[in-house]
Amino acid sequence: MTETPRHAQTTLTIETRGTGLYPFSGSVDRWLREIGARMGVATIFCRHTSASLTIQENADPAVLHDLSEFFDRIAPENTPWFRHMQEGPDDMPAHIRSALTDVSLTVPVSGGGLALGTWQEIYLFEHRRIPHARVVVLHFAGY
Amino acid sequence: MTETPRHAQTTLTIETRGTGLYPFSGSVDRWLREIGARMGVATIFCRHTSASLTIQENADPAVLHDLSEFFDRIAPENTPWFRHMQEGPDDMPAHIRSALTDVSLTVPVSGGGLALGTWQEIYLFEHRRIPHARVVVLHFAGY
Amino acid sequence: MTETPRHAQTTLTIETRGTGLYPFSGSVDRWLREIGARMGVATIFCRHTSASLTIQENADPAVLHDLSEFFDRIAPENTPWFRHMQEGPDDMPAHIRSALTDVSLTVPVSGGGLALGTWQEIYLFEHRRIPHARVVVLHFAGY
Repeated sequence: MTETPRHAQTTLTIETRGTGLYPFSGSVDRWLREIGARMGVATIFCRHTSASLTIQENADPAVLHDLSEFFDRIAPENTPWFRHMQEGPDDMPAHIRSALTDVSLTVPVSGGGLALGTWQEIYLFEHRRIPHARVVVLHFAGY
Repeated sequence: MTETPRHAQTTLTIETRGTGLYPFSGSVDRWLREIGARMGVATIFCRHTSASLTIQENADPAVLHDLSEFFDRIAPENTPWFRHMQEGPDDMPAHIRSALTDVSLTVPVSGGGLALGTWQEIYLFEHRRIPHARVVVLHFAGY
Repeated sequence: MTETPRHAQTTLTIETRGTGLYPFSGSVDRWLREIGARMGVATIFCRHTSASLTIQENADPAVLHDLSEFFDRIAPENTPWFRHMQEGPDDMPAHIRSALTDVSLTVPVSGGGLALGTWQEIYLFEHRRIPHARVVVLHFAGY
């Protein structure tokens, strides 16, 4: 191919209202269409350490429930040996859950949109109880 | 450098015969050679939510055994509080194990192949018992 | 944009002195400035299976303590069912902790540096007790 590839970047703000998984593949696809992306890779980057990213099933809401419950149980609030307590009981679990999931995802783009599988959805995983405005950087490289 | 970089993309199908780790760095390297890739980055993306990716040691098979056993124990089948049961007892553990490992990996390419360390191998991590045809998207960006 | 993007690559060696989290965002930013990177994506890749990468809070050292403690407890040394023992009691836990965290990170670059959030720092997570020289590949794609 002799066409010159290009890079584009934007930020997306996701308003959260407590812990849980917030889907946003649609917003990424909308941006890719706006900039006329055809083929390449999209990088999705979460600029926080108490919220993270994950790709999970988009069909049965019970999957999201069980996934949240798993992370609640593996890194519970008020774990007696935690030293980092001053930002609230949900802060240290939030950091651990972020480390166990993803802060950046790189997803191929083809046919003008994300090349996700049929059952895949990109989620912002909010680990804190208080509402937050979470900033995600979107980057496209390709044609 | 004044040379224009390029992007290339393909898909790879990996046939699985039950849970476990299936190495496929060789297939990625073969594709990179086919397209004449020299230097850049390769993105490897798994289009599923009950199989995932991981980079692990390629030397002692006991490492893969212990790794599988760890994930079996951390998210066991028939966990009493699971709600998502209708796709079988191995489905919800598969989603959790996928969330804990990787869905996308970006690996530098140099000298015409993946710049993996001596002991690193890329694995598809199958989390379900029934055979599946798993689709992985490969993307190259570079020279 | 009609400007042609470019790719650049280097390696970074991080000397570790036992288990723990070693910050190195500063070294990545320094390299980005050296090569005159303005906008794009940086890929950071760890060439090992007993050390890994993670992005975590850079403010309270207690966060790093609790994070290390969490990984010590979730995959403890001398777990009775481990088969991979010949490289020492800290080797199999190291592989598991690597699988649970990251081997590659892709971070957007804007304004000439990493587009990290205010509280984010990139760490090499050393999982072994003996000092090691860990090699990280840095890749930049963009303008």
